[in-house]
Amino acid sequence: MASVLITTVPFGEEDPVALRMLEDAGIKYVLNPIGRRLTEEELVALIPGFDALIAGTEPITERVMEAARELRLISRVGVGLDNVDLLAARSRGIAVAYTPEGPADAVAELTVGLALSLLRGVHLANTASHQGKWHRLQGRRLGKVAVGVIGVGRIGRRVIRLLGAFGAQILANDLEPVELDEPVRWVDKPTLFREVDLVTLHVPLTRGTRDLVGSKEFAVMKSGALLINTCRGGVVNEAALAAALRVGQIAGAAVDTFVDEPYYGELADLETCLITPHIGSMAADCRVRMESGAVLNAITFFRDEPCDELVPESEYEVRAREEQSLES
Amino acid sequence: MASVLITTVPFGEEDPVALRMLEDAGIKYVLNPIGRRLTEEELVALIPGFDALIAGTEPITERVMEAARELRLISRVGVGLDNVDLLAARSRGIAVAYTPEGPADAVAELTVGLALSLLRGVHLANTASHQGKWHRLQGRRLGKVAVGVIGVGRIGRRVIRLLGAFGAQILANDLEPVELDEPVRWVDKPTLFREVDLVTLHVPLTRGTRDLVGSKEFAVMKSGALLINTCRGGVVNEAALAAALRVGQIAGAAVDTFVDEPYYGELADLETCLITPHIGSMAADCRVRMESGAVLNAITFFRDEPCDELVPESEYEVRAREEQSLES
Repeated sequence: MASVLITTVPFGEEDPVALRMLEDAGIKYVLNPIGRRLTEEELVALIPGFDALIAGTEPITERVMEAARELRLISRVGVGLDNVDLLAARSRGIAVAYTPEGPADAVAELTVGLALSLLRGVHLANTASHQGKWHRLQGRRLGKVAVGVIGVGRIGRRVIRLLGAFGAQILANDLEPVELDEPVRWVDKPTLFREVDLVTLHVPLTRGTRDLVGSKEFAVMKSGALLINTCRGGVVNEAALAAALRVGQIAGAAVDTFVDEPYYGELADLETCLITPHIGSMAADCRVRMESGAVLNAITFFRDEPCDELVPESEYEVRAREEQSLES
Repeated sequence: MASVLITTVPFGEEDPVALRMLEDAGIKYVLNPIGRRLTEEELVALIPGFDALIAGTEPITERVMEAARELRLISRVGVGLDNVDLLAARSRGIAVAYTPEGPADAVAELTVGLALSLLRGVHLANTASHQGKWHRLQGRRLGKVAVGVIGVGRIGRRVIRLLGAFGAQILANDLEPVELDEPVRWVDKPTLFREVDLVTLHVPLTRGTRDLVGSKEFAVMKSGALLINTCRGGVVNEAALAAALRVGQIAGAAVDTFVDEPYYGELADLETCLITPHIGSMAADCRVRMESGAVLNAITFFRDEPCDELVPESEYEVRAREEQSLES
């Protein structure tokens, strides 16, 4: 009988359907005993003996796999693979699955919600009001600003569709333009950072996107500009963001993803930084879809049935190219 | 030369175009010297000698008009008329104008932003994160909940259009059904309060809508239900809302409009109540449109030119019927 370590937190909390699926399939499971994202160290200590990992965003490194002698499958709850050493997994014959569609709707909705909050200062107004201050700040409408969307994949295109309903003007950037129903202007990154009122990021974290937004970018942005990061922490340089907010180089930011999570860093001291604790995918329907998707991927894998959501070859190729460019 | 008292605050702060219009027309103006919504008392003291009032939501009562011997026009910056004694104005030959389209887009956008914040707990997460707490709350998606819209006029229909883009299921209520592009289910109020996950209010404050949401309504709502009030304070009974939130009869609320403003009441002690300081119309483009609209209404009035935005006869008739039903 296969045994599974579930590291992502929370799991099956609001709706235990994914846990029932494991039980019905006769798969033993252990839930993350620490209750937060594990460190590499903790994972190395916990993983021996398990056949599969139902994984969150903890570091699944070569060292972890070295300790995981029985491991045959890493099944990610979610879409990001930046925490998984794909090439190490492949060289050890460990399969990797994910749930690429699962979080997209929830992340897109959160992003638009954060945009509306930032533009109208809802978070600032709420904090002030609860402190007994009444100050009617003037905001801007989504229908009257230019939004820059960097990364137009599963999530970025959903964000663009929703922004379109508000009448926002959209500048988009990706490795190459994609077909969209909404009118967007495809621009290079320098143009985007210079021209828009609000930047939102929807790229995976790779060597190419690490620190994609840093002091150089903040320097060219409008002083009233806003930044949203609901993709991955490392895509924005956190120290540069804190500095830009402190001196008013940009007007505000909303950050849902951080380099280290749980996050207790300096951005939390800045009221112009709206902070949420990586809740992009934390909507009931999406969470259930992701959890049961990751479990289904594990069940089909252990039954030797075809699994649709194994990570595609292209992801391994990207990773191999990155390794190469780093060595050369 | 006509002289105007501008009571609404702020006015011309971000964009002085409306003030320039007055100057170009040779109209003298005085800005609200107190910097917040005036009381009846304060308005009585300030108003003598002015020919027109460019008004906010302060009480423009019979007593105020009694003191305003020269007053010929009340030009509201905005759409709500609950603060103006229309019948007293008519009997004294004081004209009343307003800017009905001005705030609609901004209020609708804010409403959708508040809905997204409430559903995902963004305001709670932001406060907790700034206090050094990391707790990943599970939320709900707009695309997966039923929203009840009470009042389907200029603002309500815009809210419905935006909610439709997110795929929300919509239950609507108004005096009578209106033609809409989006599919909605028209229901009576008791059905709406019982069945929806989120209620949003877009009615004017009249004798008929005062305390439209009170303890009786909270008692039948779902325990996870949410309430948004971006219309007028008196439409929700504030004490009943505070009680409902305290005991968990409903899960949360977002309130932008209050009976007394500035608001320093008990809702500010409840973190499940997202509070904004009447910023529904506070978006740059809408504010300019409303301010310059109200000024244009005053200019055309004093030039004896036809003014499109005089309050229509139907508003006076509603008010007269209310007076009558109160007396009988």
